[in-house]
Amino acid sequence: MAEKSEKSNKLKARLPRGLEDRSPGEIAATREMIEKIRAVYELYGFEPVETPAIEYTDALGKFLPDQDRPNEGVFSFLDDDEQWLSLRYDLTAPLARYVAENFDTLPKPYRSYRVGYVYRNEKPGPGRFRQFMQFDADTVGSASPAADAEMCMMAADAIEALGIPRGSYIVKVNNRKVLDGVLDCIGLSGEVNAGKRLTVLRAIDKYDRLGRESVVALLGEGRKDESGDFTRGAGLDAKQSQSVLSYIESPLADRGADVESALDNWGKVIELSSTGKDGINELKQIGALVRAANYGADRISFDSSVVRGLEYYTGAVFEVELTFATDGKDGSPRFGSVGGGGRYDGLVSRFRGEPVPATGFSVGVSRLLAALEYLGKIETKSERGPVVVTVFDKDRIADYQNMVARLRGAGIRAELYLGSGKFGPQMKYADRRNAPCVVIQGSDEKVKGEVTIKDLIVGAELAKLEKGREEHLQKQVEAQRSVPEADLVAAVREVLARHGNN
Amino acid sequence: MAEKSEKSNKLKARLPRGLEDRSPGEIAATREMIEKIRAVYELYGFEPVETPAIEYTDALGKFLPDQDRPNEGVFSFLDDDEQWLSLRYDLTAPLARYVAENFDTLPKPYRSYRVGYVYRNEKPGPGRFRQFMQFDADTVGSASPAADAEMCMMAADAIEALGIPRGSYIVKVNNRKVLDGVLDCIGLSGEVNAGKRLTVLRAIDKYDRLGRESVVALLGEGRKDESGDFTRGAGLDAKQSQSVLSYIESPLADRGADVESALDNWGKVIELSSTGKDGINELKQIGALVRAANYGADRISFDSSVVRGLEYYTGAVFEVELTFATDGKDGSPRFGSVGGGGRYDGLVSRFRGEPVPATGFSVGVSRLLAALEYLGKIETKSERGPVVVTVFDKDRIADYQNMVARLRGAGIRAELYLGSGKFGPQMKYADRRNAPCVVIQGSDEKVKGEVTIKDLIVGAELAKLEKGREEHLQKQVEAQRSVPEADLVAAVREVLARHGNN
Repeated sequence: MAEKSEKSNKLKARLPRGLEDRSPGEIAATREMIEKIRAVYELYGFEPVETPAIEYTDALGKFLPDQDRPNEGVFSFLDDDEQWLSLRYDLTAPLARYVAENFDTLPKPYRSYRVGYVYRNEKPGPGRFRQFMQFDADTVGSASPAADAEMCMMAADAIEALGIPRGSYIVKVNNRKVLDGVLDCIGLSGEVNAGKRLTVLRAIDKYDRLGRESVVALLGEGRKDESGDFTRGAGLDAKQSQSVLSYIESPLADRGADVESALDNWGKVIELSSTGKDGINELKQIGALVRAANYGADRISFDSSVVRGLEYYTGAVFEVELTFATDGKDGSPRFGSVGGGGRYDGLVSRFRGEPVPATGFSVGVSRLLAALEYLGKIETKSERGPVVVTVFDKDRIADYQNMVARLRGAGIRAELYLGSGKFGPQMKYADRRNAPCVVIQGSDEKVKGEVTIKDLIVGAELAKLEKGREEHLQKQVEAQRSVPEADLVAAVREVLARHGNN
Repeated sequence: MAEKSEKSNKLKARLPRGLEDRSPGEIAATREMIEKIRAVYELYGFEPVETPAIEYTDALGKFLPDQDRPNEGVFSFLDDDEQWLSLRYDLTAPLARYVAENFDTLPKPYRSYRVGYVYRNEKPGPGRFRQFMQFDADTVGSASPAADAEMCMMAADAIEALGIPRGSYIVKVNNRKVLDGVLDCIGLSGEVNAGKRLTVLRAIDKYDRLGRESVVALLGEGRKDESGDFTRGAGLDAKQSQSVLSYIESPLADRGADVESALDNWGKVIELSSTGKDGINELKQIGALVRAANYGADRISFDSSVVRGLEYYTGAVFEVELTFATDGKDGSPRFGSVGGGGRYDGLVSRFRGEPVPATGFSVGVSRLLAALEYLGKIETKSERGPVVVTVFDKDRIADYQNMVARLRGAGIRAELYLGSGKFGPQMKYADRRNAPCVVIQGSDEKVKGEVTIKDLIVGAELAKLEKGREEHLQKQVEAQRSVPEADLVAAVREVLARHGNN
């Protein structure tokens, strides 16, 4: 390896674009957040299941939005037996495979949750990663709107369990059948128009962000964005576009009103096929159930602007939006979406050759974590480090090792300095480790059978005080003291207790 | 999607070879095990870090054993910018990249741990998967044998924290420099012989499993296995082979003896270069430290048979073996290895152009879990399911939903039956969910303002008893009772308490 480590020849240590490492604080905060969500899901009777990151490409299907890259958003590779494998791009498609494969042994309806990384081979951007974590819950085998209602209530409960107060979030509900009902009326029904329908849906989805003019372009010939990239439009004629715009601009006014009347009224304003009317009816059932369970419009509201980008939704669609204002650096008045989902009745049946209704909800873990951090509900900074036992005399490393072992034996996080630095670098190391104190035993102390405990937190305070004053003298006593070797653990405990740490 | 769901056309739901789904019980047991190991690592001052599953192929390097497949054991794909990406095959190579990339901001020595999936594009076999979980701890930036000694002690502590008793496991230690020292003496030193050295090491590693004759073949021309597959040998001549065999067959006898004398004696028996002597010396230092910390040969022993398959090791190598006897179905008297590691001083320096010593230890999570299950230390069967509220009258689903909400509000795992089945299938569902009891409210009960609680566990016992006997009558009372609606939570609590569950 000697040749390779020459400067000229050395490898560059770097992560591929769109990937990131995670710090101790982020890892601990993510774990804390996931445990809280998990407790809610378990209370609802959902059980965990885990599938691998790799699946057959055909089993995953192609349901991603914005498939404008060559391999359509998915990392894929050819297996030895010439079959294509892919990294999962969400946790729903693999669940569908799992349920279909284990259909006969699973309880049905089957409620489950899972957390894990998913991979998208997309152009990375700010806040847009090629590996990110999702936390999903799904109910497979129930066509009942009660299953959709449960998803929405569980999502609301999970958000509140994380400390986000009522009024700061909203679970918004719509139904793809209503959207399909609008498109049926302008002649976009049937399998042949599936692609066109999707383009229209994605245009609708962008109304809030891009505004009327851009959406008109996306419904028609297409749109050139600021960077000059051209997105092909749905190719609708003026009359068709007008119908879609009239849908977007006749929003459902649910807030505060009786939800069933609001849905009835909405259904009368927009032109709908019978599929669309079924959608309204399903929304009414969901509305009745959540209101009966005392989830008011302040928690779960019905909202015509919700579309969701994934192709596989077939009925109710949900989105959890955080409604509190951010500092507005990116110009958005609300924090925005942290998760969503919906009904996907076709995904499992692809494998089964029989209808298998299903509904689910997915949390974007890092987005939600960012929200909790913004609200001060979770801490992603590193916590206090371990006690550091310094090495004054390299020949007595076994002695220092034993001090560390005594501290650990007492349940105190502790480590031996393992580097080759002298005392200065060792103290710098302890600082960097955020150690509450260091343990020192030089030859003088050894002779006396003592150890010195140096309180680094008090030490830092001391440095800021005027010398000679009473407080300075007091702190000086606390900052460093020598005790008999036998009292090591007690003396370290005293330091930890001083700083509210056991 | 209608076309696709026709029988003739439907997709097959299956996992690619060598991948597996994980059940609720396995997931819970894995979490429990990881938490216990994590507590030990944290006590030792190690902090978590996480890297993504995807890295640049060149950053990972090629250090895998048995690279006899075309893409050499690694899943790889070409990125848009024509650079090769790979899924990580272990957690060590990505750590090296991480440390090199963040070298200036990390405390040094840097102690960290991480748990995650790794991927090997290998021929799957029994117990050999293409995705599996590892739990690693590493100390980067310390050349001190004290860092290796700490790894061994921490591994022993972690194993005991999991409930595996002393005497049922052993941490075995050797040093690649000793092995290199033997090979130096038969003329296999230098970079040109690196490949040959690795072939010899892997042959040594197989002595226990394949026996003398096969190893002689692997040291020489090569070996044909039972399946007819030929493995090319190292091409040593008879004299060279004899030296290697004499190393293997002059084992280090450490158990019970004073470890430093044992190492001294071993060093005299085998022919060693100065590198080999350095190796012996490092082992002596590790031995002195672990013995001073009271880790006897019953926990950490020095063993010449330890080699480890990965190419990147440069010094001490460790292996944790579980020594208790299994039922011997596979003919192995011991459970075997559940983890290992060693010193890899060259891995980080590939990026840095300066020496960065490092040592680490990796646990094979599923293998260790299997051991804990075998010993009865952990339960991977599913636990008790949720209380199931049945749906007797579909028009009153909101009422049933509210009962579920009351139970959940009291912290009781509960779910509403969301399927379309009548009462029979609902009871079958509750059984499959492992529910302790079901809640029923038919129209008669509704009129009386009551609910019926059916205890499924007592019910199952009842079915086995002779009718009319006192016990049967008693159980019959417990098996099903009706209570006022207001007492729902209390009555369900009573059932849960009866079965030792809250």
